[in-house]
Amino acid sequence: MLFELEAVLEFSGDIGSKKSEIEEVLSNTDKGLFKKGAPKGKEGEASQLKEWSIEGNKLKVKIVSGRYVRAPDALLRLRNQLNLLGAKIKVGIRKIEIKKLEVKGVELGREPKEPVKIAFYVDKIELKGDKADIIFGPSLTVDVIEGGGVDRVIELVIEKAGRQEYEGKAEIKKLLREGKQRKMFTDKDPSVELEKMKWIRRTHSKGQFVYGRNFTSLVNALRDIMIENLYKPLGFMEMIFPKFEPWDVPKKSGHAKSIYPDAYYVMVPKVSSPKEWEDVMDYFRITGEIHRESIMKKVEPVGILSYAQCPPFWQFLEGKILRADTSLPLKVYDWSGPTYRNEAGGTHGIARVEEFHRAETLFIGSPEQVKKMAEEVEEKLTFIFDELLELETKKYSVVPWWMAQEGEKKLSDNEVEGVGTVDFEAYLPYRGERAKSEWLEIQNISIIGDKYPKAFSVKSSKGELWSGCAGGSFERWICAFLAQKGFERDKWPNEIKRRVKLVNELNEAKFTNAEDEIEFA
Amino acid sequence: MLFELEAVLEFSGDIGSKKSEIEEVLSNTDKGLFKKGAPKGKEGEASQLKEWSIEGNKLKVKIVSGRYVRAPDALLRLRNQLNLLGAKIKVGIRKIEIKKLEVKGVELGREPKEPVKIAFYVDKIELKGDKADIIFGPSLTVDVIEGGGVDRVIELVIEKAGRQEYEGKAEIKKLLREGKQRKMFTDKDPSVELEKMKWIRRTHSKGQFVYGRNFTSLVNALRDIMIENLYKPLGFMEMIFPKFEPWDVPKKSGHAKSIYPDAYYVMVPKVSSPKEWEDVMDYFRITGEIHRESIMKKVEPVGILSYAQCPPFWQFLEGKILRADTSLPLKVYDWSGPTYRNEAGGTHGIARVEEFHRAETLFIGSPEQVKKMAEEVEEKLTFIFDELLELETKKYSVVPWWMAQEGEKKLSDNEVEGVGTVDFEAYLPYRGERAKSEWLEIQNISIIGDKYPKAFSVKSSKGELWSGCAGGSFERWICAFLAQKGFERDKWPNEIKRRVKLVNELNEAKFTNAEDEIEFA
Repeated sequence: MLFELEAVLEFSGDIGSKKSEIEEVLSNTDKGLFKKGAPKGKEGEASQLKEWSIEGNKLKVKIVSGRYVRAPDALLRLRNQLNLLGAKIKVGIRKIEIKKLEVKGVELGREPKEPVKIAFYVDKIELKGDKADIIFGPSLTVDVIEGGGVDRVIELVIEKAGRQEYEGKAEIKKLLREGKQRKMFTDKDPSVELEKMKWIRRTHSKGQFVYGRNFTSLVNALRDIMIENLYKPLGFMEMIFPKFEPWDVPKKSGHAKSIYPDAYYVMVPKVSSPKEWEDVMDYFRITGEIHRESIMKKVEPVGILSYAQCPPFWQFLEGKILRADTSLPLKVYDWSGPTYRNEAGGTHGIARVEEFHRAETLFIGSPEQVKKMAEEVEEKLTFIFDELLELETKKYSVVPWWMAQEGEKKLSDNEVEGVGTVDFEAYLPYRGERAKSEWLEIQNISIIGDKYPKAFSVKSSKGELWSGCAGGSFERWICAFLAQKGFERDKWPNEIKRRVKLVNELNEAKFTNAEDEIEFA
Repeated sequence: MLFELEAVLEFSGDIGSKKSEIEEVLSNTDKGLFKKGAPKGKEGEASQLKEWSIEGNKLKVKIVSGRYVRAPDALLRLRNQLNLLGAKIKVGIRKIEIKKLEVKGVELGREPKEPVKIAFYVDKIELKGDKADIIFGPSLTVDVIEGGGVDRVIELVIEKAGRQEYEGKAEIKKLLREGKQRKMFTDKDPSVELEKMKWIRRTHSKGQFVYGRNFTSLVNALRDIMIENLYKPLGFMEMIFPKFEPWDVPKKSGHAKSIYPDAYYVMVPKVSSPKEWEDVMDYFRITGEIHRESIMKKVEPVGILSYAQCPPFWQFLEGKILRADTSLPLKVYDWSGPTYRNEAGGTHGIARVEEFHRAETLFIGSPEQVKKMAEEVEEKLTFIFDELLELETKKYSVVPWWMAQEGEKKLSDNEVEGVGTVDFEAYLPYRGERAKSEWLEIQNISIIGDKYPKAFSVKSSKGELWSGCAGGSFERWICAFLAQKGFERDKWPNEIKRRVKLVNELNEAKFTNAEDEIEFA
């Protein structure tokens, strides 16, 4: 990798008369300034001052380097030295212009199939086999260099070149266990039936439903089953996680790398006074319509609606140290509200909604504790799905969703022993034969390693801190359950039957099912 | 009220040669066309064709009227007649231009204290005592007239002139009942204590907290108390209401009239393909920052986050008829997630948050049923606050929040017998003496009349359909409770004590309170 940089350092005054003092600093660069920190024997690869010249109040320099003490860093070192000198010679650096920065022979590790583009600071990227030359543009500033922008651009080029290889195969699945085949009681799509029976109703928003009393009774039955058979025995306690995520959360969780196409965005008024909004109010009063353009001008984006559910939890522990002896493992769960995703691929009944209700299960501790917890949670969930709900499911090991999700540099994190995800998938008869149809993912359990503790700087008072989580949604649990068991309640497993209270079974007439009784006007 | 209108009707061809046919239509206006529908004896106040002239393919007309068959409506009638004629004379109307529309002497019912402005279609509004002249501008089109825009502008002017009177006194309160004075166990602000004890933690978002295990245990205790003492005995069943409201909901509920300064807005991507978002992704990868400007260009506003909680429920019944005999009264509750408001006035601990967790109680039926339900709900809540939580509270009757909220035309709807709101307010010792300090509203019960059934066209199979609702948030219930009872658990009423499980009371060491154990790094 070769760096070529040209810059013009503009001083607060003429430096013609200070040539000798400046020359002294410059002549020293190749001896010390540009070499410090380069590995023994590699000094040759460190920065070299190739040319320099002075004109009025401007100093032009040309710096080249290999991978050690890279030219952009050398420029910063030179600036600092000259500013020290400035105190003596009474002229300081006012401005630095990057005339040229090229990084040649960046190793990509593979030959990209398509051109690689970067939207900021880069003019063009020339691919040469498995190498790339990066030509930066005029928008590159010293601030960007100081912020580490150049290295991040190089990283990003390498990642983009590599990511193409994985396109389309974001998830790599391995079958772990095939549950026993079960008698199916229907081949109908439960979403369609639920709408017919008026247990749920579609809203005017894509992938959103209002859930009636009978459906909610099913939800609560599952919730009770989870509490009694998963949370209580394993010592999990409930918390209430925020459902709106200020930017700070996706920035730290890493979702800000790639969440954008899938997110629900949240905006708030820049100015809250009613006067400021009177035009929008008037417009609605007169036309009965929402003045979207005017709203867009008056709001600012403050974050997103919760997507993965657990990231906002980490604000609770952010910047703290957990006492290993008494506080770990920490086991909590949350189902205090919906999470959201914009489904580009489209929605389907309650199998794929945009506003959905997940139960998030979160465990934090030493790597050993987290691996043990993941096993115990997986065991309990297997028991619940197999023995209590009597569902036909398969279990897979997959590449963690969050890696694909957040566009991690490489998949090698996945090779960290123990880190990974287990998925439960349920058979949906209405989609066709077992072998030929797509099954529904109803639950995952992930060991995430030190990702979140690092991201939110949470530490253990003793050794490494890991986390893991398990997520599933009421919508998908119920979709799988009704798709296999149908709507005849006598056919339902007792664990559900005994818990569910349907409106039309309550004694008093006046409680008979409103959903059944209503008719179209 | 006097209407003066001038318009130019442009035909698809020259009409000089069709003068006689057109004249016949015009001469008929004052006899029939412009008079139809005016009350007996009031024909004089209906529209009159004052002048007309033909030039090339243009017909200029001047129409004046009083309050009956108003000039704008007369213009529409004339257009239709001429289009009928057009079939014969082979030239149709291509375009209508409103040259002038003035509405003079609009009665405001009171003399406005400030000028009245309308942001659309109106050039200026001249106030003359308790009357106003409305001069419309060139942006006024026939489409707006057909959409009823002119009448809505007049309504809005009258409302704005009147609303000024109520400014500042949006809520009119009457004391209904003063609960007995109780011993206070602390004078500390519970929000401050809760943060110190690490039961809750502030996030990076205004007025938002993460709620830890102990706090959530308190929440669940209150939830159980409500279920056992309010919902079960009165036959309420749980539903899951959406928490994102597509525009259609605030448009129908009326919140779209004035919610804007207080709302959290939701946007989704116009285009979901990752390619479309690559620049935002790159920007974050290189700078570590969110590219807000670019996001604003790529999203569109689709609605707001739930504010009043019950409006999205109505999508469940929209356009239906409820069978009075079997389905009414309909009693449901929802606490399936947070609601949001942008608090211009600022937030304060858990007493005023922006993301808050309300329990919404909703009842629908005949006016008699709804009034009865409201009484029963109020009784049960009084019992819960007085006998079970042993809180010191006051009960007030107030002008319904939603009227102020949605800028209703007048308060007289409030005079509809029975419609109104009851508020519970709790004493907060940390704010000072009973008489001198502001108490905290912790619960309201409202009889809303036919507002929502009308808005979402829901009917009863027999007679009028009304609705009522009751709302309170966990945050405020707990704020009031801890502000009065303090943090010494032995001092808590038994109903709470026996239900709450604090982390640090569980036997096993490993469950001791993580919140207490964590220390700042």
